[in-house]
Amino acid sequence: MPAALAPVATAVPTHVRGSHRAELVLRHAGPLVARIGYELQGPADAPVLFVAGGISANRHLAGSALWPEPGWAQGLVGAQRTLDPGRWRLLSMDYLGADGQLDLPIDTADQAQAIAQLLPQLGIAQLAGFVGYSYGALVGLQLAAQHPSLLQRLVVVSGAHRPHPYASAWRALQRRAVALGQLQYGDAHGLALARQFAMLSYRTPEEFDERFDAAPVLINGRVRVPAEDYLDAAGARFVGRMPATAFVRLSESIDLHRVDPAQVQLPTTVIAVEGDRLVPLADMVNLVEGLGSRATLRVLRSAYGHDAFLKETDRIDALLASALHPPGETR
Amino acid sequence: MPAALAPVATAVPTHVRGSHRAELVLRHAGPLVARIGYELQGPADAPVLFVAGGISANRHLAGSALWPEPGWAQGLVGAQRTLDPGRWRLLSMDYLGADGQLDLPIDTADQAQAIAQLLPQLGIAQLAGFVGYSYGALVGLQLAAQHPSLLQRLVVVSGAHRPHPYASAWRALQRRAVALGQLQYGDAHGLALARQFAMLSYRTPEEFDERFDAAPVLINGRVRVPAEDYLDAAGARFVGRMPATAFVRLSESIDLHRVDPAQVQLPTTVIAVEGDRLVPLADMVNLVEGLGSRATLRVLRSAYGHDAFLKETDRIDALLASALHPPGETR
Repeated sequence: MPAALAPVATAVPTHVRGSHRAELVLRHAGPLVARIGYELQGPADAPVLFVAGGISANRHLAGSALWPEPGWAQGLVGAQRTLDPGRWRLLSMDYLGADGQLDLPIDTADQAQAIAQLLPQLGIAQLAGFVGYSYGALVGLQLAAQHPSLLQRLVVVSGAHRPHPYASAWRALQRRAVALGQLQYGDAHGLALARQFAMLSYRTPEEFDERFDAAPVLINGRVRVPAEDYLDAAGARFVGRMPATAFVRLSESIDLHRVDPAQVQLPTTVIAVEGDRLVPLADMVNLVEGLGSRATLRVLRSAYGHDAFLKETDRIDALLASALHPPGETR
Repeated sequence: MPAALAPVATAVPTHVRGSHRAELVLRHAGPLVARIGYELQGPADAPVLFVAGGISANRHLAGSALWPEPGWAQGLVGAQRTLDPGRWRLLSMDYLGADGQLDLPIDTADQAQAIAQLLPQLGIAQLAGFVGYSYGALVGLQLAAQHPSLLQRLVVVSGAHRPHPYASAWRALQRRAVALGQLQYGDAHGLALARQFAMLSYRTPEEFDERFDAAPVLINGRVRVPAEDYLDAAGARFVGRMPATAFVRLSESIDLHRVDPAQVQLPTTVIAVEGDRLVPLADMVNLVEGLGSRATLRVLRSAYGHDAFLKETDRIDALLASALHPPGETR
C-alpha cells in the first residue's frame, strides 16, 4: 500500500459501531437469520479482545469521543485499565435476543455461533482473548468449546460450566413474576418484581446488613422495609432498559447452558467470587478441576457477591492484568 | 378433694382444644378483641411447655387419639421425643392473624400479649418453658422480654432478636408477589409465587444441588427447570392452607420484630443452623452475646437451612433434651 495513504488509515475512527448478518442454526429453535450489533474500540492493528457482560449488558462498553455516554463496563475499560482501548482493540456485541424481538429459547452456544460468524466479517481471524463476566463467561466457555480456533485465551469471571440448580430455581421464579405481571398490566410490574428478586441474587446479605439495617416503617398500614426504596429504583431502571421478552429468554439461556470443561482446551483464567449466591465458589472450583492444567483460579472475597465485577473494578482489573499480559508490557 | 372423685380426674382428656377471649392493645394498631385458639396435650398436672412454630404453623402440634391428623410438629412431639406429651403438658396456639381475618400490622409483641392473656385463663401461672422455632422463636423472645414472670426457660431455634435486612427484603418482595397476583386473579397465583420464593429462603443450594441437578426441559418453547415441579407443589399446598392476608401480615410481623437481648433475663438455649439463609449464624451469635451468661449456643450444620427444625428432627430432639431437662429424668 502506498505510503501516501497512511494518513487516511490513521484517520479511521477507533470506535466503530455496526451490525452484520448472521445465518444461525439455533440449538433449540432451528434456523434463524439475525443481525448482530457490535462495537469495536481501539487501534485497528491492535490485538483483539472480546469483552462480554451480563444478560442486560450490550455492545457499548465505555464512552469515547464518538459515543461519550457511559457503558456497562465503564469502570473496567479505559487508559488506566488493563482493558485499555489504546493497547487492545476491544470488541463487544449485543446479545442475540437482547432487543426482545426473539421469543425463542436461546442457548449460550447460539451466542458463540453468532460471534463465530461475526469475526470473519470484521476481518478478525482470531481473538487474542475473550473476557466474559457472568453470562459473558458462559458465552466465552461455549466459544472456547465449540470454536477453539477463534481465540487464544479465555478469562471467565463469575460464570461456570453449568447453572447451579438453586440459581436456576431462583431464575425460574423470576420468569414467573414476569408472566404473572403480564396478565394484568403489561410488562412493567412483573419485570420490575423479577429484577428485584434478581438483585437479591446478585448482591449479598453482608451488603444489605451494611446499608439497610433500620426499622421498617408503616405506610398506609403496610410494612415497608428499608431496602424497598433501593429495590424500587432497581426495578424501575431495569424496566426502562430491557424488554421483558429479552429478560425471559436470556434468563432461560443461563439455565440451558452446559459446557463440558474437558472440551475447553485453551489457557483459561477463572475468577471466582467467594460469596456469590448465583455461582457458588464450589462450582467455579469444579470448573477449574475440569479444565485441568490449562486453568488458573483466582478467588476474590467481596460483599458485592455476583456483582463484584461491576463494583470491585480495581481488584478485578488487577486480576485481569495478570491474566492478559497486555501488549507492550514487559513482564 | 374426696378420693372417690379421682377416677373422674384421670378421665379428663389429655388433648384439649378451645379458645379464649383476649383484650389486646396491638403495638401498631391499637385495641383489639380477639379469640385465641389453643390446644393442650398432656397430663393436667405435668409442667407446661409452650411450643410455637413458623408463621404457617397452628395450634395442632401432633395427632392424638382425639385428633389423629398429623400436626406441624409431628416429628418433634411424641412418646419417644423430648417433647413427650406423657411427661409435659404441651400448649400451643393459633397465631393472632393466622385466620386471615386481621388485616392490620401485627407485631411479635402482640403474640406475646395474647399468650400472656391466655395463660391465666387456662389456670397456668407459669410455663416451665417455651420452645419456639422460626417465628415461634421471635414470639418466645418477646414473651421473655415483656412477660418474664410467665416462663422459667426459653429455647429458641432459628430465630433471632432482629430480622436480617436481607431476609426482610426477600420477604418484602414476596408480599409484592401477593399484591401483584391479587390485582389479576384473586389470591392464589401471587400467594403461590410468594411461597415458592420463600421456599428458596427456607432451603439451601446444597439441597437443590442434590435433588435437582438435571438439564431443564423445553415445554411449549419455554424452559422449565427441574425444581419447578417441587416448587409448584409447595405453592399449591400453601395456597390451600394459608389465607393471603394471614401470610402478608405474619410476614410483616417478622420484619417488625425487634427485641433487645439484654431484656431477656431467663436461662435461654439458642439453637442455630449454619447454612440458614434467613437467619444467619452471625445474628444468632450476636443474640447469644447479648444474652450473656444466661445463654447457651448450640449450632447445627444442615443442608435444610432454615427448615432444619422440620427435617432434622432427631438432631433437634437431641439438643432439646439437653436444654429442657425433661421431668422425671435423672441427669
